[in-house]
Amino acid sequence: MSGKRWSGRFSKATHKSVEQFTSSVDVDRELWREDIDASIAHARMLGDQGIIPKEAAARIIEGLGEVGAEIEAGRFQWRDDLEDVHGNIEGRLAQLIGAETAGRLHTGRSRNDQVATDLRLWLKRRLPGVRESIARLQRSLMVRAEEQVDTVLPGYTHLQRAQPVTLAHHLLAYFEMLQRDQVRFASCLESVDELPLGSGALAGAPYPLDRRAVADELGFARVSANSLDAVSDRDFVIDVQAASATCMMHLSRLAEEIVLWTTSEFGFALLDDAYATGSSLMPQKKNPDVAELVRGRSGRVYGNLTAILTTMKGLPLSYNRDLQEDKAGLFDSLHTLTSCLEAMTGMIETITFDAARTEAAASDPTLLATDFADYLVQRGAPFEEAHGIVGRLVRLAEDSERSLTELSLDELRGVSSLFDEDVLCISAESSVESRSLPGGTGADSVRTQLERARQLLGEA
Amino acid sequence: MSGKRWSGRFSKATHKSVEQFTSSVDVDRELWREDIDASIAHARMLGDQGIIPKEAAARIIEGLGEVGAEIEAGRFQWRDDLEDVHGNIEGRLAQLIGAETAGRLHTGRSRNDQVATDLRLWLKRRLPGVRESIARLQRSLMVRAEEQVDTVLPGYTHLQRAQPVTLAHHLLAYFEMLQRDQVRFASCLESVDELPLGSGALAGAPYPLDRRAVADELGFARVSANSLDAVSDRDFVIDVQAASATCMMHLSRLAEEIVLWTTSEFGFALLDDAYATGSSLMPQKKNPDVAELVRGRSGRVYGNLTAILTTMKGLPLSYNRDLQEDKAGLFDSLHTLTSCLEAMTGMIETITFDAARTEAAASDPTLLATDFADYLVQRGAPFEEAHGIVGRLVRLAEDSERSLTELSLDELRGVSSLFDEDVLCISAESSVESRSLPGGTGADSVRTQLERARQLLGEA
Amino acid sequence: MSGKRWSGRFSKATHKSVEQFTSSVDVDRELWREDIDASIAHARMLGDQGIIPKEAAARIIEGLGEVGAEIEAGRFQWRDDLEDVHGNIEGRLAQLIGAETAGRLHTGRSRNDQVATDLRLWLKRRLPGVRESIARLQRSLMVRAEEQVDTVLPGYTHLQRAQPVTLAHHLLAYFEMLQRDQVRFASCLESVDELPLGSGALAGAPYPLDRRAVADELGFARVSANSLDAVSDRDFVIDVQAASATCMMHLSRLAEEIVLWTTSEFGFALLDDAYATGSSLMPQKKNPDVAELVRGRSGRVYGNLTAILTTMKGLPLSYNRDLQEDKAGLFDSLHTLTSCLEAMTGMIETITFDAARTEAAASDPTLLATDFADYLVQRGAPFEEAHGIVGRLVRLAEDSERSLTELSLDELRGVSSLFDEDVLCISAESSVESRSLPGGTGADSVRTQLERARQLLGEA
Amino acid sequence: MSGKRWSGRFSKATHKSVEQFTSSVDVDRELWREDIDASIAHARMLGDQGIIPKEAAARIIEGLGEVGAEIEAGRFQWRDDLEDVHGNIEGRLAQLIGAETAGRLHTGRSRNDQVATDLRLWLKRRLPGVRESIARLQRSLMVRAEEQVDTVLPGYTHLQRAQPVTLAHHLLAYFEMLQRDQVRFASCLESVDELPLGSGALAGAPYPLDRRAVADELGFARVSANSLDAVSDRDFVIDVQAASATCMMHLSRLAEEIVLWTTSEFGFALLDDAYATGSSLMPQKKNPDVAELVRGRSGRVYGNLTAILTTMKGLPLSYNRDLQEDKAGLFDSLHTLTSCLEAMTGMIETITFDAARTEAAASDPTLLATDFADYLVQRGAPFEEAHGIVGRLVRLAEDSERSLTELSLDELRGVSSLFDEDVLCISAESSVESRSLPGGTGADSVRTQLERARQLLGEA
Repeated sequence: MSGKRWSGRFSKATHKSVEQFTSSVDVDRELWREDIDASIAHARMLGDQGIIPKEAAARIIEGLGEVGAEIEAGRFQWRDDLEDVHGNIEGRLAQLIGAETAGRLHTGRSRNDQVATDLRLWLKRRLPGVRESIARLQRSLMVRAEEQVDTVLPGYTHLQRAQPVTLAHHLLAYFEMLQRDQVRFASCLESVDELPLGSGALAGAPYPLDRRAVADELGFARVSANSLDAVSDRDFVIDVQAASATCMMHLSRLAEEIVLWTTSEFGFALLDDAYATGSSLMPQKKNPDVAELVRGRSGRVYGNLTAILTTMKGLPLSYNRDLQEDKAGLFDSLHTLTSCLEAMTGMIETITFDAARTEAAASDPTLLATDFADYLVQRGAPFEEAHGIVGRLVRLAEDSERSLTELSLDELRGVSSLFDEDVLCISAESSVESRSLPGGTGADSVRTQLERARQLLGEA
Repeated sequence: MSGKRWSGRFSKATHKSVEQFTSSVDVDRELWREDIDASIAHARMLGDQGIIPKEAAARIIEGLGEVGAEIEAGRFQWRDDLEDVHGNIEGRLAQLIGAETAGRLHTGRSRNDQVATDLRLWLKRRLPGVRESIARLQRSLMVRAEEQVDTVLPGYTHLQRAQPVTLAHHLLAYFEMLQRDQVRFASCLESVDELPLGSGALAGAPYPLDRRAVADELGFARVSANSLDAVSDRDFVIDVQAASATCMMHLSRLAEEIVLWTTSEFGFALLDDAYATGSSLMPQKKNPDVAELVRGRSGRVYGNLTAILTTMKGLPLSYNRDLQEDKAGLFDSLHTLTSCLEAMTGMIETITFDAARTEAAASDPTLLATDFADYLVQRGAPFEEAHGIVGRLVRLAEDSERSLTELSLDELRGVSSLFDEDVLCISAESSVESRSLPGGTGADSVRTQLERARQLLGEA
Repeated sequence: MSGKRWSGRFSKATHKSVEQFTSSVDVDRELWREDIDASIAHARMLGDQGIIPKEAAARIIEGLGEVGAEIEAGRFQWRDDLEDVHGNIEGRLAQLIGAETAGRLHTGRSRNDQVATDLRLWLKRRLPGVRESIARLQRSLMVRAEEQVDTVLPGYTHLQRAQPVTLAHHLLAYFEMLQRDQVRFASCLESVDELPLGSGALAGAPYPLDRRAVADELGFARVSANSLDAVSDRDFVIDVQAASATCMMHLSRLAEEIVLWTTSEFGFALLDDAYATGSSLMPQKKNPDVAELVRGRSGRVYGNLTAILTTMKGLPLSYNRDLQEDKAGLFDSLHTLTSCLEAMTGMIETITFDAARTEAAASDPTLLATDFADYLVQRGAPFEEAHGIVGRLVRLAEDSERSLTELSLDELRGVSSLFDEDVLCISAESSVESRSLPGGTGADSVRTQLERARQLLGEA
Repeated sequence: MSGKRWSGRFSKATHKSVEQFTSSVDVDRELWREDIDASIAHARMLGDQGIIPKEAAARIIEGLGEVGAEIEAGRFQWRDDLEDVHGNIEGRLAQLIGAETAGRLHTGRSRNDQVATDLRLWLKRRLPGVRESIARLQRSLMVRAEEQVDTVLPGYTHLQRAQPVTLAHHLLAYFEMLQRDQVRFASCLESVDELPLGSGALAGAPYPLDRRAVADELGFARVSANSLDAVSDRDFVIDVQAASATCMMHLSRLAEEIVLWTTSEFGFALLDDAYATGSSLMPQKKNPDVAELVRGRSGRVYGNLTAILTTMKGLPLSYNRDLQEDKAGLFDSLHTLTSCLEAMTGMIETITFDAARTEAAASDPTLLATDFADYLVQRGAPFEEAHGIVGRLVRLAEDSERSLTELSLDELRGVSSLFDEDVLCISAESSVESRSLPGGTGADSVRTQLERARQLLGEA
């Protein structure tokens, strides 16, 4: 017979392979500190409420502190056969303070509310770090944008050159995406911020627990309202997975741009040697592996979201062991996301932009076609007509293998009499400057965006 | 040559099959009203700002009103070759008020900011309806819970009978899940609440647009801060898909319970004939098809979430045509979710609970094992020891094919001297009552939950 | 009371909204022809086996033919309240030949085996068309490759220029991917090729059905071996969804390359006007919308795969109504895949490659670094050492802003004495030619690939 | 400067965090044996072809053997800074036999074809084990089915009791599902069975490699036809992930049934103590945790499929670092699948069926309603009419709170004069026996299925 707490009614030990199959200690030991802290809060409250003797509570708290010290110091022996992080910690506690006293800790709680508490507490403590990692990438984008307010590059739609924009404006687009991620993770923090402890296995507890006191000690804003729900709710995990997937999607887009920009063909940017890798076969290669891995790892995080949604589908109330599958993917997603954010931050901080290349590309006169059309509109042409006129000019230029700005005023006037000499002043710079409306790529707008960025990062 | 606005530079018409392949009118005509309203706001602002003549603005607004009336009346001819809802509406507008005036409407905007505006506006208008559908299901759960405060059934973990709970408590667990869905969709509404119009194709617009005025007319809280981001951001679609998937997951769980409860084996509930179906082969069958379809359709909505995340992965800035794929899945998810919510509401409203069956099941004495353990704890035993004692009693009872409550006081005392006569008072009812702690299944807690429910539904 | 077959034991009609919620006729009418053919085969067998009167069988067959003719001619009134395609067809049959005779058709079968049969039959008939669409794209790749055996472009790893390859070799890489899709869809055809009819609702049928005869008439290779499995098996749908997702992934890669190649920066290819679209705002734009939509629609098909896997998760035996969700996604995936294949075929057939641009890019001397290393190896250097030497040469060239091939023989010899005059003959062409090993990019290998392609397409 | 092979052209070392971010050795060391074997085959071929000196080849082979022995014995020091399994093994080889000789091993290959070869070889060796695990579960189902040919239980549709079936028939339905998994994994083995080595980084190799000889030594059926495809193809990973997901779906269904069957309400089966777990709170609980974990882990494997499809989406040719993400999910899926198969096998082998409970449930007379209808059909009633008659009987019985078989012959005849005395012989047993058609639940059919099972398992 194994020494499992629940073995009383069993006449036969768990099969060894079943022990391994059901053991979660490899994954959930990540929660050790939260498990200890939550147990300490529970024990203190049990003592304060007179549910267990005060001195028992004190010894439990002291013992738990000792267990925590052992784990922190790397002196702890994790055992598979004790099932999970809780079993391991309680097992050691019993050795330290005696089984009888240690056994009082489980009064008025169950594994089901305990593990939900630990995981929420873990997220309460980790999510702020995720938000800081996001902020660091935002800051690096902002800093680089500040340097590049005057650098012009082609803006793209359909990856076709469309209109000139500034590099600052382009980088700040990613700042905005990440700002939404900040909001999303702030929501996650709110959904996490609820104490399930006191829900028992499913029905609540028949002891005068002071749930609010435990919540206060652990820093939870709310206590859960319904015990059946509380032990089987993993919405907060899904929220974090969805926020992570969305943020990884943003990073995959930025990564794609870095891959594009560092090609020979675009040549808009050069990676720092410290953020690039070479080839085992081709001595000339300088590869954007970091960006590629970030892009590729979006798959991993999307997969983790699919996984938890699948696992939760169709489960009846209340706790089911399927829920054990909530943690591995969660830890993996947050680790992946955080490391990708950090890698991107370093890459953005150290990347060199090649303004000569971006500006050469931006001087492609076809980028000014919209400006020609807007010129005509400002002289009274309906937009649709103006669009048609410029379309014909583009074709005219193409047919004679020239660019739009190489057409003579006479040729322009041959197509529309609205053209006047000032049309020759249209340039990438004038194009950018004309779009200073809020949100536009002109300098005024970009400066407003930068100010907003600085404020959002708390540096105003 | 086709009559497409952008055909100026093309020397050859779009291939017929390409036209069909790229056309989105079958899907995006859903947005017609929002397209017209956003165009009206845009036209009014263009006139007010003197960007187009006031009278042109007036005629455009009038013409758009007429187009809207035609669509509403079902008199509108939708054409595939006009690509999308925008092309169809503008084409008709040109017929009604002349191409020249109609052509001024497109001043200072592009398809890219237009479609993003339409979709956000559509969601601003539709999401409150989704929240109302959720509230209706919450209300029906609350109403049924009010009737069932005293009905006891087994609470389950691992689908094994665990401890007695009340049916009210059980139904309210779903109320809580749906309450989180409410919060989630409220967040979606905030993420939707931003006006992209004025971002142009990608770089902003070179006209003195009054973006705030357009936002006010359409009811948007914010204007977008960065044009490149604004035309390529579909986070708000992902937010809605994730919220829908989570809500469908909740419904799949409730559906699973209805399927279980209406089996011959559980027999806890009986579907109303109006919410059940029969079999073409087996005359006796009364099948919970509605619940099964709700459960099955979680797949469809999960799939739509996977789809949009996949589509967005790795797209460089700014607009790419891939984004056209945002709408079909979104419309499908909201339609699926809403119809599932409604079907569940009807089913919950009309389902008959069989209290005789639930109470018979809840009187299974093994459900009281925890109460026996808690009894011992309250008499001083550490929980772990108490747990072990009761485990042995369970085995003792099983071995003699009796139930826990059929053991005599002597037998009980043979295992632990802590047992006294009052142990014989332990019953399903006493078990429930002892768990009146906040969140527990006892009547006090359930009444608090019901009050909270009523307040959340605005009925307090 | 509705006229539903199964209404005998119900005392109340189905709720109108439930009727709509459960109705599948909008989707499954796609199966009408298969439903009729399978019913004809079933009726004929019932008559031949003497299970129903011969003349009843004859009238049923005749009546079903008439129903089919009505549907084909567009004269059929589909009704939601008859639930599904089967109910609609049988309802009409009863009108045509009388309810009594029509009612004999359902002898020895149920909806559960009927719908599984229809769907398998539908796929048996549609999958060959999918394979032909794949073959058409393969053929167009092969034809274009034949023209481009001598066109050199940079081969990329990490989207960095790596080594010169031929355009033929590059296009044939996609031929190979599609060839694997052929194999995968051939496997799907095998998994589809099984007759479930005769499984009844779940337990088989108590009539002397000749299942083999029905299979023969409908062209099925096997009859199902276990009725419980047969009515609830949707593996074949998953197989098709997985094959479709993989094929869409291949198309998304080809689409990505077309997007890249048609940028100003790469400029390797130009889309035919018939396969490109313009911009409503920017008159100069020629956008690869078709490629972008193909790429974006991978999301839709991935989503459909996620959906069916989710729907099937955790369903107990045997038939559950959740299975109704198998069809919408299946039809959508095959429609999406087929139309994407066709669009890609047209695009590949009409795309113009710009050999001047590809060859200019391929003449980038850094592409020859590996050849320099291989040169040294062939003169006795261990590869690792050779790799290091060339790495230094690359840096030497970069530092003096020259290219590798602009280094003098003296400079080369300064780094390694193994260099001799013939090193100056290394060129993109010599590089390609040296890789004529099976699978390589040299002409011999490419010709072998082309031959293989022609054989696989049955044109040898 | 780090000692990385490709560092020649770099002037700055990789950032420490980048090294960690890009390192894959924690995952890909799983491939060590395959890496060594493939390197040995490559070295031997290089020597045989005279590409490197014979004695160098011999020393390399010997050295690799030594490295392998060190790893096997656990004496190997894995280093993160050597990037991956290949870098680690080659680094050690250089220490053992000198850098110059070791450096010759990389002649004519690159990391890109090397890692694809290793992974394919690994799967070639592991997939047969997966198939054996499937076969073991099939065998245990067959063995248990053989014992249960006469045990009757209700067959379910919609989880409603439908018709009596035998437990053997029910268990064999899962045998059939698993048989399809066998076919699917056999296809995977074929798709894996191709040698990419010789494709170089992307373009092939300029050495007279004998690819066929390497394939033969490693046991590959084919060599790859196109180098660009070969280094970037991960279809075989997707195939394995899809097959794993489908198999996990089957297991999730069987798991769901075990969860249902071991409830108090169904009570059809009892888990062996060795395959069940208890509760930390509720002493009476015996929980089907193993089944629940199997069911829940379907999510994990579905997620891995989503992940690889996402990662591959939209990647241009040829190798991109994103592909590194192929392995972690693959190893996880195969480990999960195999351990779930083993756990299910043990559970099926040791589960106790409670024939008294299944037969009591199967004697529910409503299960015979179809048989009553079939009785009428066999006496000449059209099926639809017969169905209606029995529907009325079911209601008649329900209204008087009796069962179908408690209606008197007079009452039956009151509804249809076709009823005769022999209708009273209809029973669960007669119902089962009447369905002996191929695929049916009758004993003849089940015996045929068992024979087929034995043959498929190679025991005939």
